[in-house]
Amino acid sequence: MATFAFGKRRVYYEDMGKGEPLLVLNGIFMSCASWEAFVPSFAAKNRLILVDFLDQGKSGKMDGEYSLSTQADMVLALLEEIKLESVNLMGVSYGGEVAMKAAARCPDKVKKLILSNTAAYTSKWLRDIGRSWDDACRSHDGRQFFKTCIPIVYSPRFYEKHYTWVAAREDLFVTHFTPEVYDAFGRLIRSAETHDERGNLSAIASPTLVISSEYDFVTPPYQQKELAEAIPNASHVTVQNAGHAVMYEKPAEFVSLVLGFVGSDLDIRVVS
Amino acid sequence: MATFAFGKRRVYYEDMGKGEPLLVLNGIFMSCASWEAFVPSFAAKNRLILVDFLDQGKSGKMDGEYSLSTQADMVLALLEEIKLESVNLMGVSYGGEVAMKAAARCPDKVKKLILSNTAAYTSKWLRDIGRSWDDACRSHDGRQFFKTCIPIVYSPRFYEKHYTWVAAREDLFVTHFTPEVYDAFGRLIRSAETHDERGNLSAIASPTLVISSEYDFVTPPYQQKELAEAIPNASHVTVQNAGHAVMYEKPAEFVSLVLGFVGSDLDIRVVS
Amino acid sequence: MATFAFGKRRVYYEDMGKGEPLLVLNGIFMSCASWEAFVPSFAAKNRLILVDFLDQGKSGKMDGEYSLSTQADMVLALLEEIKLESVNLMGVSYGGEVAMKAAARCPDKVKKLILSNTAAYTSKWLRDIGRSWDDACRSHDGRQFFKTCIPIVYSPRFYEKHYTWVAAREDLFVTHFTPEVYDAFGRLIRSAETHDERGNLSAIASPTLVISSEYDFVTPPYQQKELAEAIPNASHVTVQNAGHAVMYEKPAEFVSLVLGFVGSDLDIRVVS
Amino acid sequence: MATFAFGKRRVYYEDMGKGEPLLVLNGIFMSCASWEAFVPSFAAKNRLILVDFLDQGKSGKMDGEYSLSTQADMVLALLEEIKLESVNLMGVSYGGEVAMKAAARCPDKVKKLILSNTAAYTSKWLRDIGRSWDDACRSHDGRQFFKTCIPIVYSPRFYEKHYTWVAAREDLFVTHFTPEVYDAFGRLIRSAETHDERGNLSAIASPTLVISSEYDFVTPPYQQKELAEAIPNASHVTVQNAGHAVMYEKPAEFVSLVLGFVGSDLDIRVVS
Repeated sequence: MATFAFGKRRVYYEDMGKGEPLLVLNGIFMSCASWEAFVPSFAAKNRLILVDFLDQGKSGKMDGEYSLSTQADMVLALLEEIKLESVNLMGVSYGGEVAMKAAARCPDKVKKLILSNTAAYTSKWLRDIGRSWDDACRSHDGRQFFKTCIPIVYSPRFYEKHYTWVAAREDLFVTHFTPEVYDAFGRLIRSAETHDERGNLSAIASPTLVISSEYDFVTPPYQQKELAEAIPNASHVTVQNAGHAVMYEKPAEFVSLVLGFVGSDLDIRVVS
Repeated sequence: MATFAFGKRRVYYEDMGKGEPLLVLNGIFMSCASWEAFVPSFAAKNRLILVDFLDQGKSGKMDGEYSLSTQADMVLALLEEIKLESVNLMGVSYGGEVAMKAAARCPDKVKKLILSNTAAYTSKWLRDIGRSWDDACRSHDGRQFFKTCIPIVYSPRFYEKHYTWVAAREDLFVTHFTPEVYDAFGRLIRSAETHDERGNLSAIASPTLVISSEYDFVTPPYQQKELAEAIPNASHVTVQNAGHAVMYEKPAEFVSLVLGFVGSDLDIRVVS
Repeated sequence: MATFAFGKRRVYYEDMGKGEPLLVLNGIFMSCASWEAFVPSFAAKNRLILVDFLDQGKSGKMDGEYSLSTQADMVLALLEEIKLESVNLMGVSYGGEVAMKAAARCPDKVKKLILSNTAAYTSKWLRDIGRSWDDACRSHDGRQFFKTCIPIVYSPRFYEKHYTWVAAREDLFVTHFTPEVYDAFGRLIRSAETHDERGNLSAIASPTLVISSEYDFVTPPYQQKELAEAIPNASHVTVQNAGHAVMYEKPAEFVSLVLGFVGSDLDIRVVS
Repeated sequence: MATFAFGKRRVYYEDMGKGEPLLVLNGIFMSCASWEAFVPSFAAKNRLILVDFLDQGKSGKMDGEYSLSTQADMVLALLEEIKLESVNLMGVSYGGEVAMKAAARCPDKVKKLILSNTAAYTSKWLRDIGRSWDDACRSHDGRQFFKTCIPIVYSPRFYEKHYTWVAAREDLFVTHFTPEVYDAFGRLIRSAETHDERGNLSAIASPTLVISSEYDFVTPPYQQKELAEAIPNASHVTVQNAGHAVMYEKPAEFVSLVLGFVGSDLDIRVVS
C-alpha cells in the first residue's frame, strides 16, 4: 500500500510478493480491492503490483476530461517509481486498452502482455453503450447504475446462479458509492471514447495472450480474434461458459491462464 | 388497416394479400409500420396479418400492469375476429414470447411456428436488463432511451457500418415518441418480467423454426439452442454476422427463412 | 428422365415440375436418385432439374482425368439443351464447387445461387483427405470405402442416433457399387484437386445463399464464412446440430432454406 | 530413461526435473520422443514423467487385443514404481481417455487432471473413423496411413501453412515405421473401441482442466463441453485457431495452460 505523485494527483498502488513482476490494470468499475481473493495466488511466486487508475479507487480524482493516454503515462510513471525496467503487464477490459497502448508505445518495457476481454478500439456501438453507462452515472442512483451497467458484463447463467451474490454487490454499490465516485466513473468511461489502437498493434513486441470468454457481450470473442490477429506474437484462448467479467466468473481458470503465461518458457519450436 | 375491440381497447391490425396466412408478432419497440419494407415480400404469395400489441403502435394504451398472457389472449381473439381456424405464426423477440405461449396453449391454432431471437423465459439477467430499459423509459428522454436500449440489439459491425441510418432512427425516436409512448414501452417491458414458458414448450405441436443470429447479445444463440431442444418438432438455424434485430440487419435472409418455412412441404423422410 | 450428348458421353438428367427453375448439382458420392425424398417438395412449385455429373450415377463414365471445368461446361451445355436462358443454381459440396465456377464464368445465366457446405478452393488439407478417399476407392472394398469416406460427412450425434440407417447404407454401397463405380469416384475426387475459385468469386453477380452446418468437419463453417465474404451479394446461414451432409440430416431445414431463397422477393431496403 | 516390468512387458518412461510431479500420457500416434521440444518448459520447475503406452514407442509390443483398462493399470503401476502417492496427470486424446479412467478409479492418486482434446466415450462415429485408421494401418503403407489418419488431426490453416513440416513428417513415418509399428497402432486403436467412461466421470475428484481447440474435428469442442459438464470440478478452455493436435499447433498456449493449471493455487473464492 503506497502512493506516488503523478502530476497533481496521488496514485494508489500495492506492491507485494517476490518473483517475476506482474502489473495488473483494472477494469473500469474495479479497484485494487477487487483483486483481494486473487492476491494469494498471484503473489505466491510473483511480485504483484496492483494500481488504481486515476479517478479509480483510492487514487486521486480528476477535475476534467482526459484520455487513455494519460492513464498509460501514469502506468509508465509507476514503472519508474518502483524501478522496474520491464514488467509482465495484464489488463482487463479498460485496463487492457491502457495495457495495449503502453505496450505499443514502449515495447521494451513489457515482457509479456495479457489482454483479457478488451477492445482494440471503441466502436460507435461500444461508445454508445458507454454513453448509456455515463447517463446512469450522472443519475447518481446506485440501482439505476447497477441495472444499466452490470448485468451485461456477466453471462446470464452466472448471473442467475449467483444472484444472491450479485444482489449483495448491488447493495454494496448503493451503500458505498458517492456522487463523486459516479462522476469519476463517468470520466473514466468518457476517457475511452476516442480509444483506437488498431494502427499501433503491430508495434507490440511482447508475447501476448488474448483471453476472451464465450459469452462476452461487451467485447465479443470475434473482436478479440481480430485483436489477436493484429498483434504479431499473440495467442488466443477462450474461457468457456463465462461472460465479460471472466475473472469473477471463472477465477481459477483466469489465474491459471495468467500465471501459466507469465511463468512458462514459451520459446518452444515444434514446427520450424 | 382495421381495428377490433379487445376488452376496453381497440387493437390495430393490417390484413393483406392472399394465400397461406402468416401472422406476425412484433418486437417490443416495433409496430406494424416497422414491417413496411417487408410487406411486398411477405404478402406476395401469402395472406399477411400484422398487429400492434396492446400498448404498441396504433393499438390502445393500457392503464395498468398486465402480463404476456393478456397479449396472447389478444392474439387468439384476433384469430377469431378474422375468422382463421389456424395460422402460421411468426414472432420476433417479445413477439416470439407471446407466440410460443399461444402455440403451447392452443396447438391446433398454429400451423407452423417461427420464433426469431426470443427467450423461453425471462431470466433474472434479462429481467434486470429490462429494468434498465424501464428506467430509461421513465426518463422520457429519447436520447437516453436510445443509448440504453438500442445499441445492444444490433451487432457492432452493423451499427458502425450503418451509423447514419442508426442516428436517423435516434432522431426519429426523439422527435416522435411522446411520454405516453415511453410509459407504454415501460408497461410492455414489465409485462414480460414473469415470462416463463419452459414448462409448456413440450405442448407445442407445430413444426417450429427457431431463428437465431450469431451476434445476438440479448437472447444469445445458446439459449435459443436450448429453446429449440425443448420444442418437440423444432429446427434451428443461425443467421451469420447479425445481431438481435436480425430482420433489420439481414432482411433478405429473414424473409427467405420465414417464407421458405411457411411455404414448403417439410414432410420429407430421408432417414426412417 | 432424359439424356443429352456431351462430347462422347451421355449425361443423365431429370426435368420435372413447373415454375421458377431450380437446377441441383450433386455432392460427390450422390446421384439424382439421392434426391428422391426431396422431389415432392422441390418440384411442388418449381421446375426442378436434377443431373448426374460425368462419372456419376447414370451419366457416362470418363476414361481419363479431367477437372471441375469440364463439369461446369457440362452444366452450361445442359442449360442450352433444356433451353433455359438462366436458372436458380444450387450445389452441394462438390456440386457447389462446380456451381460457383459456372456462376463466376457466366453470371448472367445464374439467377440465384445456393452453395451448401462447399469450398472456395481445395486446400492441401482437403486435397490430402481426398487422397485418402481416393486410396479407399482404389481398394474396391465397400466397407473400407465407407469407413474412410462416410463417418466424417455426418455429425457424430446424427451418425450415432441413426446408426441403423447408416449401416443399411453401408450394406447398400457394398452390394451395389462395382469396381467401375469406385474408379469413377476416384476420378471425381481427383477432378477437384486443383479447384481454386478464390480469384473469381468477385465475378459472381447473383444473390447467393451460403448454407453451412454447425458440425461440418469437411468444409468447416469458418471457411464458408470466408466464402460468403468473398462473394459480393452473399447471405450466410448455419443449420445447427448438423454435419456436412446437411440435406440428409436436416431435410426440412434444407428444403425451406433453398425454396425460401429461390422463391422470395429479396429486394428489401430497410437500411438505405 | 528407464523401464519397469508390467506383466510380461517392459514399459519405457522418462523421469526428469524436480517439483510438483506432472505425468504426461501420449496421444495414439505419439511417444515420449514427441515431447522433446516441450521438455525444457515442462521440466523447468516440475518433475516431469513421460511414458510410452504398451504398444507405443519404446515400450513392449502386445500380442493380442486389450482395452484402455490395461493401459490405466500400467499408469497406476508406474506411479507405484516411481513411488508417487499422487500426481498431476495430463493426457492428450487417447492419453486423456486413459487419464480420465485412472482418475475416476483412483481419485486420491490424481492431484489435478488435464484432459486435452479427448472423448468421454467412443461413439459409433469415432469408432468407425478409428476403423478406417485401422484399415490404413493394416496396409503397412506409410503414405496411405498418413493421408487417412493425419490431415484430420490438424486444422486446415495450420496444415496448409506448415505443409513443408507436414510433408517431412510423412517422409519420416514412411521411413521409420515398420510393419510391427503399424500392427501396434492397430491394436492401440482397437483398444479404445469400447471406451465409455461417461458413467464414471462423477467420481473424478480432482480439479480438472478440459482443453479443447476451435477446429478439433476428431473430438469436437461441443463434446468436450459435455465432458467438462460431467466432471464435478472442471474448467473448460478453448485454444483458438488450432486443431486436434493442439500441442503441435500451439505449443506455447498448451504449455502455459498446463503449467498454469498445475502450478497455481486455484482455491479462490470470489463468489460464495
